[in-house]
Amino acid sequence: MSDLICKVAIVGGTHGNELTGIYLIKKFARLPELVKRASFECEILLANPRAIAANRRYIDRDLNRCFASDDLANHHLTGYENNLAKQIVARLGTKDRPQTDLIIDLHSTTSNMGLTLLLPDYQPFTLRLAAHLAQIYPDVRICLAANNEVGNSRLRSLAPLNLGIEVGAIAQGVLDARLFHQTQMLVTATLDYIDAIDRGERPVVPASVTVYQSIGSIDYPRDPAGELLATIHPDRQFQDYQPLHSGDPLFLTFDGEAIPYTGTATVWPIFINEAAYYEQEIAMTLTDRQEIGIESR
Amino acid sequence: MSDLICKVAIVGGTHGNELTGIYLIKKFARLPELVKRASFECEILLANPRAIAANRRYIDRDLNRCFASDDLANHHLTGYENNLAKQIVARLGTKDRPQTDLIIDLHSTTSNMGLTLLLPDYQPFTLRLAAHLAQIYPDVRICLAANNEVGNSRLRSLAPLNLGIEVGAIAQGVLDARLFHQTQMLVTATLDYIDAIDRGERPVVPASVTVYQSIGSIDYPRDPAGELLATIHPDRQFQDYQPLHSGDPLFLTFDGEAIPYTGTATVWPIFINEAAYYEQEIAMTLTDRQEIGIESR
Repeated sequence: MSDLICKVAIVGGTHGNELTGIYLIKKFARLPELVKRASFECEILLANPRAIAANRRYIDRDLNRCFASDDLANHHLTGYENNLAKQIVARLGTKDRPQTDLIIDLHSTTSNMGLTLLLPDYQPFTLRLAAHLAQIYPDVRICLAANNEVGNSRLRSLAPLNLGIEVGAIAQGVLDARLFHQTQMLVTATLDYIDAIDRGERPVVPASVTVYQSIGSIDYPRDPAGELLATIHPDRQFQDYQPLHSGDPLFLTFDGEAIPYTGTATVWPIFINEAAYYEQEIAMTLTDRQEIGIESR
Repeated sequence: MSDLICKVAIVGGTHGNELTGIYLIKKFARLPELVKRASFECEILLANPRAIAANRRYIDRDLNRCFASDDLANHHLTGYENNLAKQIVARLGTKDRPQTDLIIDLHSTTSNMGLTLLLPDYQPFTLRLAAHLAQIYPDVRICLAANNEVGNSRLRSLAPLNLGIEVGAIAQGVLDARLFHQTQMLVTATLDYIDAIDRGERPVVPASVTVYQSIGSIDYPRDPAGELLATIHPDRQFQDYQPLHSGDPLFLTFDGEAIPYTGTATVWPIFINEAAYYEQEIAMTLTDRQEIGIESR
């Protein structure tokens, strides 16, 4: 694959109550020169207008789970987001015939994820990009998604190269000034990097980088009817990216009893206590921390 | 008025996405001995079942604004919460003919309010109760509501004595272990205090207490169409109860320009950046910090 990028899309409001991306896209609509670069076309998109208007994650179904190829071809799926997904495909291209080289999708989380770059499982171009950003901004963390069905159902999977920017902790329906401006900073640096590559420059990239490889998730303790029995343990709340060792307190029941982590391997949890994941039966995503080499080009 | 309390109601889920109170009421339903006291009857209530099921603040209208006497008498108001309010009145009593002496309503906020007791404007009984709690738990802060229409439209206004417990910062749709158990601790201490009063004891109460008297609110800067122009300034985010002096940075525009507070009087903002108040055009509530004497009985 050539590294030449002709078209980039920046997407906000894939989830209608994550205001950071929504207001950043509105800012780019007002000041288009902020995302204009000489070497490629840049499109901006507010993905889920009805959910944005309702200040809800979604209306009928999580839009960021509607882009599996089978679902896009299924005309029996007629909910709002399933129809919306087909409209977005018409605009950004299909997976088989992409019209967009790279999608940046802007998200926020109630978890204390700071500035996180969410990458597909392994993709040399975006890994070099992310390593470059992490070198400029040492607070940035890089997560590699598990290569699974969820990944293929995301909006950003429509482009062969894609990047999620996930910032937190932010409550749903709230703007945080610092994280808003830091998200803009990451988008700007991403566009500058792509532009430099397109112009044949070689932006500085480190020889290796720390990544957090997603390896699964843990649900909350529940009773047989699915009712919650415990919360995240206070020692673990907001401790995203901190190592979790066997025996560490993980949950606290409503009656005050600590429940430890019983896995044997040390893991690095992220998305701890994300509001939207209660219904998805995810108390946290587990990752493995790895140092990986960056391929030279 | 006699200080004898015969019936107390503890309410959670007045807002369906404030999980702390909801799960505390579920715990009390499972372990009723926790709220049982010899000297009074104690009822528990999950106020808005459909909003709780939907994990939303409300379905049609904020339930905690549906209890104005005119609205309760208005049969043309037929939204879900307006009907629900009439059912709750049938259970807890009307303002004119109260059947409940004291209501404790459990809330959470995305603002950094810690452990806050929300009292009606001035009410000697609840002020003594709050002063007692603040003496036991020095982190507790006491807010006196403005005596206005909003106060009279709240669920807890159905009882002549009432108390809101407001804890944060918690994102909507999220449980925080520490604040959950601290909320339970405050409810327990409140019930113990009432029981002691009923039995003729005189629980320790300080001679004076610090209160934050609500004096109004400020909206976000907006354009003529109502669109947000700025966020809370990062220096002010999560700084509830900290003094705001004339000239202090208050907002930050999306273009990075600080907007100062232009009032002349020092105020103590609370409910800073509460998610549910964007639509109510409230960026924060302003309070005046006062030291007030506690009447001896």
